[in-house]
Amino acid sequence: MKFDTAYKLKDLAEFLGCSYVGSPNFLVEGINEIHVVEPGDLVFVDHPKYYDKALQSKATTILINKEVACPKGKALIISEDPFNDFNKITRKHKPNIAASAAISPSATIGENTVINPGAVVGNNAVIGANCFIHSNVTIGAGSIIGNNVIIHPGTVLGGDAFYYKKRETGFDKLLSGGIVVIEDDVEIGANSCIDRGVTGNTTIGAGTKIDNLVQIGHDTIVGKKCLFASQVGIAGCVVIEDEVTLWGQVGVISGITIGKKAVVYAQSGVGRSLDGGKTYFGSPADEARKKYREMAAIKSLPEIIENM
Amino acid sequence: MKFDTAYKLKDLAEFLGCSYVGSPNFLVEGINEIHVVEPGDLVFVDHPKYYDKALQSKATTILINKEVACPKGKALIISEDPFNDFNKITRKHKPNIAASAAISPSATIGENTVINPGAVVGNNAVIGANCFIHSNVTIGAGSIIGNNVIIHPGTVLGGDAFYYKKRETGFDKLLSGGIVVIEDDVEIGANSCIDRGVTGNTTIGAGTKIDNLVQIGHDTIVGKKCLFASQVGIAGCVVIEDEVTLWGQVGVISGITIGKKAVVYAQSGVGRSLDGGKTYFGSPADEARKKYREMAAIKSLPEIIENM
Amino acid sequence: MKFDTAYKLKDLAEFLGCSYVGSPNFLVEGINEIHVVEPGDLVFVDHPKYYDKALQSKATTILINKEVACPKGKALIISEDPFNDFNKITRKHKPNIAASAAISPSATIGENTVINPGAVVGNNAVIGANCFIHSNVTIGAGSIIGNNVIIHPGTVLGGDAFYYKKRETGFDKLLSGGIVVIEDDVEIGANSCIDRGVTGNTTIGAGTKIDNLVQIGHDTIVGKKCLFASQVGIAGCVVIEDEVTLWGQVGVISGITIGKKAVVYAQSGVGRSLDGGKTYFGSPADEARKKYREMAAIKSLPEIIENM
Repeated sequence: MKFDTAYKLKDLAEFLGCSYVGSPNFLVEGINEIHVVEPGDLVFVDHPKYYDKALQSKATTILINKEVACPKGKALIISEDPFNDFNKITRKHKPNIAASAAISPSATIGENTVINPGAVVGNNAVIGANCFIHSNVTIGAGSIIGNNVIIHPGTVLGGDAFYYKKRETGFDKLLSGGIVVIEDDVEIGANSCIDRGVTGNTTIGAGTKIDNLVQIGHDTIVGKKCLFASQVGIAGCVVIEDEVTLWGQVGVISGITIGKKAVVYAQSGVGRSLDGGKTYFGSPADEARKKYREMAAIKSLPEIIENM
Repeated sequence: MKFDTAYKLKDLAEFLGCSYVGSPNFLVEGINEIHVVEPGDLVFVDHPKYYDKALQSKATTILINKEVACPKGKALIISEDPFNDFNKITRKHKPNIAASAAISPSATIGENTVINPGAVVGNNAVIGANCFIHSNVTIGAGSIIGNNVIIHPGTVLGGDAFYYKKRETGFDKLLSGGIVVIEDDVEIGANSCIDRGVTGNTTIGAGTKIDNLVQIGHDTIVGKKCLFASQVGIAGCVVIEDEVTLWGQVGVISGITIGKKAVVYAQSGVGRSLDGGKTYFGSPADEARKKYREMAAIKSLPEIIENM
Repeated sequence: MKFDTAYKLKDLAEFLGCSYVGSPNFLVEGINEIHVVEPGDLVFVDHPKYYDKALQSKATTILINKEVACPKGKALIISEDPFNDFNKITRKHKPNIAASAAISPSATIGENTVINPGAVVGNNAVIGANCFIHSNVTIGAGSIIGNNVIIHPGTVLGGDAFYYKKRETGFDKLLSGGIVVIEDDVEIGANSCIDRGVTGNTTIGAGTKIDNLVQIGHDTIVGKKCLFASQVGIAGCVVIEDEVTLWGQVGVISGITIGKKAVVYAQSGVGRSLDGGKTYFGSPADEARKKYREMAAIKSLPEIIENM
């Protein structure tokens, strides 16, 4: 998430009630999560285990709960509770999700796009041309939808990330300030859910086709011309490269990458990154030919044991 | 479900066209299912196999299809079809689910609660303060929602229990007259479903966080500070104690208990009650360390068989 | 899909810009997919591998990309791109899905049927008597719903088939021109999805009960008095005979048949046709007693390997 206007380090620190290390006029241009930060971004870290990763990331401002040595060309903001202070920034900049009308007056709708009754289009959402938005779809505030996109009834773009910090008092929510981006020629089935990014985008690449009741988590990047069958569930922060096929009810754990043209058979559970160009099966998923050998072995097992 | 006014035994029997055993003025204060009945409640039983369980339950009135010995301090109503007659009582007392407006005039909405366009709030529903009810959410008649609750788009509270009696002529529906109770600080993702109780409550405990496309069946009691990832499915009449974590696509069979702080890994199928404080995996689910041993053994199996 | 008025062969060929083989006045009465075609229907085929199947099917007109010998009593339309030309016909005859009002003025609603706020009923949909259509349900254009049907909130009837042809340029969509037919006494839970047929009907048989978050694909035929628990996913072109029970999260692959009174346990994956009257389990599903033997063998496997 880039700010409309960059903060000076001293102004952002003051807004948070924090001290800082660095030039007071150092610019903070946006916030992001560690796997997608760029120079100009602020990232937060609140556990010594991850200090180095945050300090060495591409982010140039680190919101941190200890005054450590500041890497050259970077700045620190010292916070007692970086999680909380990160939320403060997000809260100030996230899309306004309270809607005053079914189709927000601030939304932009392209030519020849049909929006059926019951659909809700949030503030500042942008929908391209020749789209069909079916009944009872919810397009969250700030969503960006390309041309020739079809979204079937009941589908939700822009739910919040399922992302909490466990505290003594209960789960503390990391606010979601990102958006959903749907590129051209995408079709999404009925009653599917695509969450918004925490600070970045959840993106569905051009030409990808998604069936009904599919879940796609926050900040996940789906490539072009992928095919996801019904009831697939993809967690947050996943990278799915182009032309990947996931058959029905496949589950994908957070933070991994599925390589180009991989195929994952129905009901598999993907628990680690997968190379492209191969076919996978099982829960946890492995190469299908390996799994088939295991399955054949299991079938013969009862008899083998009996004969032992 | 407690009646607004208790019935006298003779009046309830007359309403049902049934005979009774007991004092005509014996009070029937409510109806409930056998696992949650209390003194004052009526329970029904229509199979000799379950007679004893019903007669010995905490219920004080038993709607039964045979005149048996009446336990001391209790009453019987003798019915040719207890299932049907139980439905007759439910039908008379269940919430009115026909809505005359998107937000029922009889609903109560707390301070600072936002309800986005397309959301429907049923008759006599009560929503606390500082809640955010997103677009196209359906809050069924009679639901009770605490404070600081977030419900994402498309989620449904108060669908009917999936509960039928098989008859020669087809499935006969047990009517749902209970409600959904969501305690404070709960967040529920998009397009999830929480069914109403048949006669009691389906309850989500304070501070619990539920992701998208999650199913929670009738009369299930979820504890405090639980975490359910996307596409989890929990059947009816389940008890989930506090701080239980269910990862994505886990399924839970009806009628069991999952103990405090249990963790169940993704895609597992829970087919029996689980002790708290442990980690589980597999379909059917077992302790994860056992399952890992089995999985390692399976991996080596094809080679072992080849070498035999 | 039957046309309101049959085409003469020459007129349909002219509409498509194609040549033809057969009598110019030969009648084309409708279009359908190969597994459900009848005499009078047109079917399309674009791969030599399937030529014979199409030519020998019950269809009497074949839209084909090569001039082959025409079977007696049949006709051919020769197309450079049968897929595309089939879509041209569907596009002309499919229901009009753009809705001008939440409840289309062309819809027919039976006596004593309740439609709650937020429900959307498409053009020319027909709903019988004594139905309850809950909030935020979407009933697609052309759907036919019998009497005494209950549809819980958020459920979608009539999403498009998830059916694409892979081309160099991306996925090309096979247009859906069929409808959804729900027979009498059916109940469907919340946030479920039943896709319309491509050219035929997706049918749910009388007395069948379906839970929440269930997916049923295009052209699938579900028999009478079936029971599908929550989060079941059934692909397209499946035949499920009467009184079949599928427990929670079961997946069913496309194109197969599940026989009468079969029972499939939770989380199973059905990858082939199943005989009726038996009980199945596992992913892929097999007879439950076999699976139980395998599971018992697996449990003892780690110890056996240790002792080897």
